[in-house]
Amino acid sequence: MRRVTTLTPPWVGELIGALGPDSVLTDPDVTAAYARDQAMLAEAGMPAAVVLPRSTAEVSAVMQVASRHGVPVVPRGAGSGLVGAANAVDGCITLVTTRMDAVLEVAPADRLAVVQPGVVNKTLRDAVRAHGLFYPPDPASYDWCTLGGNLAVNSGGLCCVKYGVTTDYVLGLEVVLADGRVLRTGRRTVKGVAGYDLARLFVGSEGTLGVITEATVALRPAPAAPVTLVASFPTSAQTGQVVESVVTSGLVPSMLEVMDRTCIRAVDDVMKADLDRDAAALVLAQSDSGGAAATAEIALLTRLCEEAGADFVHSTDDPAEGDLLMAARRMALPALERLGSVLLDDVAVPRSQVATFIDGCVAVAADAGLVIGVVGHAGDGNMHPTVVFDAADADQRTRAFAAFDAILELGLSLGGTVTGEHGVGTLKADWLEREIGPVSLSVHQAIKQALDPGGLLNPGKMFRRAHVGDLAAVGGLSAQS
Amino acid sequence: MRRVTTLTPPWVGELIGALGPDSVLTDPDVTAAYARDQAMLAEAGMPAAVVLPRSTAEVSAVMQVASRHGVPVVPRGAGSGLVGAANAVDGCITLVTTRMDAVLEVAPADRLAVVQPGVVNKTLRDAVRAHGLFYPPDPASYDWCTLGGNLAVNSGGLCCVKYGVTTDYVLGLEVVLADGRVLRTGRRTVKGVAGYDLARLFVGSEGTLGVITEATVALRPAPAAPVTLVASFPTSAQTGQVVESVVTSGLVPSMLEVMDRTCIRAVDDVMKADLDRDAAALVLAQSDSGGAAATAEIALLTRLCEEAGADFVHSTDDPAEGDLLMAARRMALPALERLGSVLLDDVAVPRSQVATFIDGCVAVAADAGLVIGVVGHAGDGNMHPTVVFDAADADQRTRAFAAFDAILELGLSLGGTVTGEHGVGTLKADWLEREIGPVSLSVHQAIKQALDPGGLLNPGKMFRRAHVGDLAAVGGLSAQS
Repeated sequence: MRRVTTLTPPWVGELIGALGPDSVLTDPDVTAAYARDQAMLAEAGMPAAVVLPRSTAEVSAVMQVASRHGVPVVPRGAGSGLVGAANAVDGCITLVTTRMDAVLEVAPADRLAVVQPGVVNKTLRDAVRAHGLFYPPDPASYDWCTLGGNLAVNSGGLCCVKYGVTTDYVLGLEVVLADGRVLRTGRRTVKGVAGYDLARLFVGSEGTLGVITEATVALRPAPAAPVTLVASFPTSAQTGQVVESVVTSGLVPSMLEVMDRTCIRAVDDVMKADLDRDAAALVLAQSDSGGAAATAEIALLTRLCEEAGADFVHSTDDPAEGDLLMAARRMALPALERLGSVLLDDVAVPRSQVATFIDGCVAVAADAGLVIGVVGHAGDGNMHPTVVFDAADADQRTRAFAAFDAILELGLSLGGTVTGEHGVGTLKADWLEREIGPVSLSVHQAIKQALDPGGLLNPGKMFRRAHVGDLAAVGGLSAQS
Repeated sequence: MRRVTTLTPPWVGELIGALGPDSVLTDPDVTAAYARDQAMLAEAGMPAAVVLPRSTAEVSAVMQVASRHGVPVVPRGAGSGLVGAANAVDGCITLVTTRMDAVLEVAPADRLAVVQPGVVNKTLRDAVRAHGLFYPPDPASYDWCTLGGNLAVNSGGLCCVKYGVTTDYVLGLEVVLADGRVLRTGRRTVKGVAGYDLARLFVGSEGTLGVITEATVALRPAPAAPVTLVASFPTSAQTGQVVESVVTSGLVPSMLEVMDRTCIRAVDDVMKADLDRDAAALVLAQSDSGGAAATAEIALLTRLCEEAGADFVHSTDDPAEGDLLMAARRMALPALERLGSVLLDDVAVPRSQVATFIDGCVAVAADAGLVIGVVGHAGDGNMHPTVVFDAADADQRTRAFAAFDAILELGLSLGGTVTGEHGVGTLKADWLEREIGPVSLSVHQAIKQALDPGGLLNPGKMFRRAHVGDLAAVGGLSAQS
């Protein structure tokens, strides 16, 4: 412990007593590193203390101290989040799960694994691969994000068009409640209907209902090596037509991604990957069905791309070429970030609306006079239009925020949601209210009240705080490039 | 309205005012038909009124009358349930959803359908098949059970080993809350993380949190026609070994069912299907992967059955022969019911424990000196051991109940659950408490209290009532053959 000054709250001693001094950080130079996630727009305060518990019992001890003293607790994994859901509020305890990083069990005969929340997504993927198994959810940050965070926001990724999202893999959870009690819910069985589905209530609740300390997750047999297809199109909306024809044809590719010319060029600038810089948009798709099934799926995909007006279609089962194309897709956002500050949208629309949505984004960009790179998981309708702007230019900044909002508006108007996989956090609390409406909001609040009557768990996330004055003063709306 | 006597509660007039006289039944001769589901052991009272609303607005009106007067409401579909979850309590309003039976929409480009709760499962299956689509959940009563009931207990069926259960297909719900407000939650998109997963909280909540009045469900592309395999074994536990080797081999059949000699002979007595009456157990499996993939899957299944010690393995792509085998499997329970009164268990165990569980059931049968037919969805570990007994023989009856409980005990001891797909209802409220423990029970109760503070919705289901005196006097534990 450095600099435990008189400003240190009295309950810090209780935390140190419970966890030991090396697990409780209060030096502002150190704790600042835990104050924010990757969200550019999100408010953030400063924690009074950062705790790094090593066990469920230590998490429980933290919650007991917090509830005794009425201190807010912000749970946090690696900080890869994109909506400020793990951002500190002033004076809080930030509870970091990264030391609880054990893969406790891999059980091939039950096709499941048991993990602590600090396990990195990729660590689990690698651990189960040795058993011929597969943990599908693969958010962009899979090589550094933690499963606790994935659970908290119900992460998706590139896999979802065939394999679904995080909640589809959750069998059971251990959760420390606001008052420190330890809840175990769910099961190790494939099926089970004994009681409410509490596990899936906690998944996606962004740390507002409890702190997940263990998860039992279902696994799948490892799929075959993928065959990858790339197709280029003269208009971006044609890629939406591909999505619709894929859906209606009954095809289920293991990946179906889109990026537009802005993204193609930004990626190509970084990677020198010989992408088709003149294409209006690319579709990247995979089949992991193996053998003749993969061949048939890729043949059908090829035909559907051609029918939608593709200039060029190419497929490959060469792993190196496939990996390069995947890397190009995963580079889209980092490459856009080199062009300026970015506002990353996360709208999911019904799949029949993808083409209309892409057209709408083009119109929003034209109205705003800004570049909007359209990239996303088109196969499941979850798109990430990304507004690029100069944060130092007040006018551009205003137009960028307006464009960001216009895209959310467009998504809602098409029957979509303001967040497909990133979460609500502080960033979209107002939009949540708009999307779900007053009845649903009141049900949310009744459940929040039932499980966390003191409002200690991650205040200001998902729901607006009644009083945000000092919070806004510290963090406010800020943008980083 | 016949016989609206002075015993009719005063609020019945309000129901008639809201719904019209043809939608409100109070004649005990008529309402008795709505007092029970198919559960033999479950308590049941007599409703004061049965209402058959035609719209969400009418359901809302019923809940408003009920909450104004503090009248319990028991939601009910076709009454095919197996745990008494739809059984009346004395003086309640039984709310029957069967008149809300419209398939409101089938949207192939979004692979979803929108249905009212009174739609029969098979009706939806048939409606979407015309679009080349598939609604997987297929409980045994699929040709008469309603989707509202399926949602209320999160039904499974034969499909689950490959396709999961009802909750895996729920995108959005409309729910009338205890106070009559109408909640819409969830979405039409594949992905979405805006707010808590309320839809999956209501699914499986057995009508204790709200009345589901509409559901948006995901569909899948119709699979290929199945190839069916049947294998016979000299011991029933060998079929559990097949399950384990299927799981560890990475195979995902579209069906993997087991029935033992008791079931085989009972079915063959009814169907004269030329089943192998001397086999200790049969495995029935299917692949719906089509073409070469199905051939490969069935070849692997054949090898795994042989390695587990099968006496005989046969596969067929003849639809008539496959249908006959499926019919034989579906006949197991009705055929057992011809032998006497039955107590139907519904234990799900981890798949690695299926063989041990089957062995344990054999031991329970021997201890009880009773016949227990073992049948179930072995591929997902959800087994339905069925105790056969003479209900008129008090001693047999006592032993049968003890055997039923011993099987639940065995399931829990193997890391399983007391209900894989039938639900808790009144039948297993005590077992629920045992399975989930006091912390989870208190979280359940907090959520129940938050959403239904008056305790009006389906009282005594899932959770024990504080006062069950008059209820037990009316219904009590009864068995039917």
